[in-house]
Amino acid sequence: MAPTFKGSDSALWPDLPRGPLSSYRARASFSAAALQLFLEGEDVVRFKKTIFSALEKDPLFARSRGADLPLEKYRELNFLRCKRVLEYGFFSVEDLATSPLRVWALIHCLGMYDWSLAAKCILHLLVFGSAVFTSGSERHLKYIEKAFSMEVFGCFALTELSHGSNTKAIRTTAHYDPATQEFVIHSPDFEAAKFWVGNMGKTATHAVVFAQLHTPEGQCHGLHSFVVQIRDPKTLLPMPGVMVGDIGKKLGQNGLDNGFATFHKVRVPRQDLLNRTGDVTPEGTYVTPFKDARQRFGASLGSLSSGRVSIIGMSVVNLKLAVSIALRFSATRRQFGPTEEEEVPVLEYQLQQWRLLPYLAAAYALDHFSKSLFLDLMQLQQGLMQGHHGARQAELGREIHALASAGKPLASWTAQQGIQECREACGGHGYLAISRLGDLRDDNDPNCTYEGDNNVLLQQTSNYLLGFLERGAPVPLAAYKWLVCYLLQESYQKLNREKESGSNDFNARNNSQVHYCRPLALAFLELTVAQRFHDHTHGPGVPPSLRPVLGRLSALYTLWSLNRHTALLYQGGYLSGERAGTLLESAVLDLCAQLKDDAVALVDVIAPPDFVLDSPIGRADGELYKNLWNAILQEGGVLERPSWWPEFSVNKPVVGGLRAKL
Amino acid sequence: MAPTFKGSDSALWPDLPRGPLSSYRARASFSAAALQLFLEGEDVVRFKKTIFSALEKDPLFARSRGADLPLEKYRELNFLRCKRVLEYGFFSVEDLATSPLRVWALIHCLGMYDWSLAAKCILHLLVFGSAVFTSGSERHLKYIEKAFSMEVFGCFALTELSHGSNTKAIRTTAHYDPATQEFVIHSPDFEAAKFWVGNMGKTATHAVVFAQLHTPEGQCHGLHSFVVQIRDPKTLLPMPGVMVGDIGKKLGQNGLDNGFATFHKVRVPRQDLLNRTGDVTPEGTYVTPFKDARQRFGASLGSLSSGRVSIIGMSVVNLKLAVSIALRFSATRRQFGPTEEEEVPVLEYQLQQWRLLPYLAAAYALDHFSKSLFLDLMQLQQGLMQGHHGARQAELGREIHALASAGKPLASWTAQQGIQECREACGGHGYLAISRLGDLRDDNDPNCTYEGDNNVLLQQTSNYLLGFLERGAPVPLAAYKWLVCYLLQESYQKLNREKESGSNDFNARNNSQVHYCRPLALAFLELTVAQRFHDHTHGPGVPPSLRPVLGRLSALYTLWSLNRHTALLYQGGYLSGERAGTLLESAVLDLCAQLKDDAVALVDVIAPPDFVLDSPIGRADGELYKNLWNAILQEGGVLERPSWWPEFSVNKPVVGGLRAKL
Repeated sequence: MAPTFKGSDSALWPDLPRGPLSSYRARASFSAAALQLFLEGEDVVRFKKTIFSALEKDPLFARSRGADLPLEKYRELNFLRCKRVLEYGFFSVEDLATSPLRVWALIHCLGMYDWSLAAKCILHLLVFGSAVFTSGSERHLKYIEKAFSMEVFGCFALTELSHGSNTKAIRTTAHYDPATQEFVIHSPDFEAAKFWVGNMGKTATHAVVFAQLHTPEGQCHGLHSFVVQIRDPKTLLPMPGVMVGDIGKKLGQNGLDNGFATFHKVRVPRQDLLNRTGDVTPEGTYVTPFKDARQRFGASLGSLSSGRVSIIGMSVVNLKLAVSIALRFSATRRQFGPTEEEEVPVLEYQLQQWRLLPYLAAAYALDHFSKSLFLDLMQLQQGLMQGHHGARQAELGREIHALASAGKPLASWTAQQGIQECREACGGHGYLAISRLGDLRDDNDPNCTYEGDNNVLLQQTSNYLLGFLERGAPVPLAAYKWLVCYLLQESYQKLNREKESGSNDFNARNNSQVHYCRPLALAFLELTVAQRFHDHTHGPGVPPSLRPVLGRLSALYTLWSLNRHTALLYQGGYLSGERAGTLLESAVLDLCAQLKDDAVALVDVIAPPDFVLDSPIGRADGELYKNLWNAILQEGGVLERPSWWPEFSVNKPVVGGLRAKL
Repeated sequence: MAPTFKGSDSALWPDLPRGPLSSYRARASFSAAALQLFLEGEDVVRFKKTIFSALEKDPLFARSRGADLPLEKYRELNFLRCKRVLEYGFFSVEDLATSPLRVWALIHCLGMYDWSLAAKCILHLLVFGSAVFTSGSERHLKYIEKAFSMEVFGCFALTELSHGSNTKAIRTTAHYDPATQEFVIHSPDFEAAKFWVGNMGKTATHAVVFAQLHTPEGQCHGLHSFVVQIRDPKTLLPMPGVMVGDIGKKLGQNGLDNGFATFHKVRVPRQDLLNRTGDVTPEGTYVTPFKDARQRFGASLGSLSSGRVSIIGMSVVNLKLAVSIALRFSATRRQFGPTEEEEVPVLEYQLQQWRLLPYLAAAYALDHFSKSLFLDLMQLQQGLMQGHHGARQAELGREIHALASAGKPLASWTAQQGIQECREACGGHGYLAISRLGDLRDDNDPNCTYEGDNNVLLQQTSNYLLGFLERGAPVPLAAYKWLVCYLLQESYQKLNREKESGSNDFNARNNSQVHYCRPLALAFLELTVAQRFHDHTHGPGVPPSLRPVLGRLSALYTLWSLNRHTALLYQGGYLSGERAGTLLESAVLDLCAQLKDDAVALVDVIAPPDFVLDSPIGRADGELYKNLWNAILQEGGVLERPSWWPEFSVNKPVVGGLRAKL
């Protein structure tokens, strides 16, 4: 099983440029190529290289970061790049089923280049496409074909101006009219406008719209989804009754056009109801294979997981890029030293190691977790498609839902905090737009919010865990295992105390989040990530030369995460005395010291080529100042005086001249 | 002493608009006007109102947030606004000495409007001006006059491309040439380019440049500053030998033009050396009133403090704006509820309270700290100007230096984390550019970096504290006081252990940062902030009606900050048993619950008028959705199809058509 690295393909692993980083590379304890091969496999390594090379060679993908690109121009470029991705045919509909890891790799390659591009492609092909596929039936497959040939452009319209997390309270309506066999899609007011919908702002022609389904006898059957044409593909002008527009500039991902839409009695054919979980007969009778609405709702949980699993992967990509930039910077930036003459790389400082190396370890551990969870999800979905609906399948679905619901918060927050730490660790140069750390932070930020607000999602996971106690099942064991058990028991008791003191369910749950259910869900997920990465790095298939470095990464992630909970470990009596706490702290610092000479090589494994990483302070050659200086001088008008120079030189102010107007 | 509020001036406190926030306002335990009067005094309240009204009435200050403003246009607007501020004559040079709190208030008003504007004004007038004033002598006062009349435009050029934190290693040189009585300013290479200098990019005509001073006999006398003309005020074109340009787009504050400059043997008159701490005679002899370089360096510490004290205030302003937006949003955003029909404001959730209210308390506590430290600094500087140079004065200088060095990290990080929490607490709508939370975060971010990297600065404070033990002086006492003492003792012992085991000073210090000196400096500062706010809110001058709410804010800040150190309290044996930790946690939650009905009124005290706050999700009328919807529809081209629509409608891609090129 152990992949061997024979250096057979030097094109896959070209020599890294010699320069200021070479001394760190020479001190590494392992071969970066061997580690990449072990983690990704040759097929994926080769596939990623194909993608990266195609982008680098194509002038349409030429970088313009740091430049002052107008929003409209960025949107156009992003759309053209999305088309070009289809033209390259990097993947087909079939790959989704047969080569999921390739699709996974493609998304990450595009995201490493620019999340606006990846998001535009994903929302159009995967989110719109899979919403149609999983919620619709045979008659809707045409929309998927048209999406892949770009005859239509898709979006997914669930959230409204006044409702996001509480999706059940969505207010758009779909009344069935048997006279014409149509649904009438309607927004009761602007607060029910679909809002935040990616691709809807300027490009989408078709939307999967969620609305409360009403049948003629007056009954509401809850939320259902419909394919609604919102623009004319021939002109990109809105369809009658649809008011559709762009919600404007965001903190990040501005290549993507997020939009809003209101519907004024817009009629869609009966067939455009996505009818997997419920349908309406031509006469207007509601029919469903599910016994109750709750069960029908549960059946859609699987598709929610796929969004969240994707976001875990996206967050990990952002973290990888950020630590790559910050660690290469830290290995080449010198400041202070034991004597006035000698300055040392800032990576040599214990404080800098402690700030950055745990995030490097987290990138590795979470990367493995996200991939393994993605594979679990694929297995689940393939089982469902083959008609497996047994208890084991249902249990697997619940577990994946719970892992994805806390995995998204853990990964997106770790990335958010890690990118911020990387930005600060690069000092002022990290604050330059061309460093890319700002874009990474901004593009990562929505990962904390969409597909379920992080804090809300954690409740899904703690509910899942609390269910174990109800059913008397065990949760695995060690300090982390103890911690999870402790929090589980405490949360359970807290909930019971709340109920006994007369709180209703709503209040009991709300008042048990801060110090009970929320840390429970996070600690459980950290344990899961740590456990999976530990198993992966200590298995029989790990090449001996990689064991030490992987073992250290695994230990660092686990201890660093656990260290955040030291207070609880003391409080619950698992730790006592002064020494226990300091041992934990020292272990983290020792691991950092052991990993610092491997840091540059570990970055070489996860960093994309310079063209994709696109940060002059993080290039593989380590020529920090030369690259930064060149990049600055490449920007337009850098040495020119401003067009408005006469406002200083000629039009002088009369100081205090307007004081009378105050 | 207690200010009384008689409602004498209804124009100062106009009635707030009725709407969705009214019910919270009605439940507040105190009068917002009375609290503002107590905290700021009527003169400052009136002054701020004058400034805000002037900006609101002047079309030059019309808001364009969220719009797609090109960089060049934003720079122009920002420059014109800076001129207009001078035309309004909001303050004069004299005010700096006689009404420092007015200058303090003006900076914050401009910053609340836009930090790019405030920064441009501050760097030109205060930073350039006070560098000339404090480091120069009589003969340099002309530069300050010219700055205030805008005949020249100033900047402060210390950091270089390859050196920031380690200022002693600055490499620009100034060789004295007795033949012409000039200094020759020279950059040995591009790595010594002055870099990151605010105002240098496009506007500055004169720079205070730091360079290593060399006299003809070959001796280097260390870093000195010079006034160097870099552009011709008549044309804004660079002076001969100066290559000056713009470093490009940053993560924030893009209205400000940060720049770089290299000097190729640029000659400046001997008189333009800022000669307060050292001078060169016409013949080329170096003369200084200080005995050694170390002492001369110490004499400049005071001027470093003023930058850091300013940044504490700037960070607090950002935190105030962010919590104002997020709390008004939380009081009007409804999601979920005890029944399907009833949705409650998200502020009613304990989790949301716990996420936001401690930051509201922190805004109040840090605001008081920053103002009191600013007043301490003013006292110190006035004493120095009156010729007081005694031991008490020196001790006060060291204390202010220590407080500013850890106060800047604590305030800027609290703001950074608070703004991020506010952004996430507003969900997707907080991710819209028009929410302003992104700009606040981006504009606040450099506060963590400039005027000394936060992590580096903390070392100044821990060094100061460690000095106490050396001298055997006591540090005040309680849980926080214990914590600081514990960390002080542990840090001291750790440093000694390191030294005993053979580490040199450099390594001993570096290896004692993470778990010793760094938390020591932060905990000490938190204690200081908490203690000062406690004293201020429990003094005899506090109106009785304000005592309960101020007491709760003070307690919440203290307990919330302390709660971050629970692990250490257990580890050191100050806490033991399960109950201690949970009591601390419950106290924080109880205080949140007690403050949530006061939250909207507490925001009314610190929030500027809607025009300045400039966030449709945080307006005083609480009409969340109407304001947001209006703002979105006001943006240009919101409903128009994109200019590049034929790229979708006509130019269809051939899917996979380029596969052969891979």
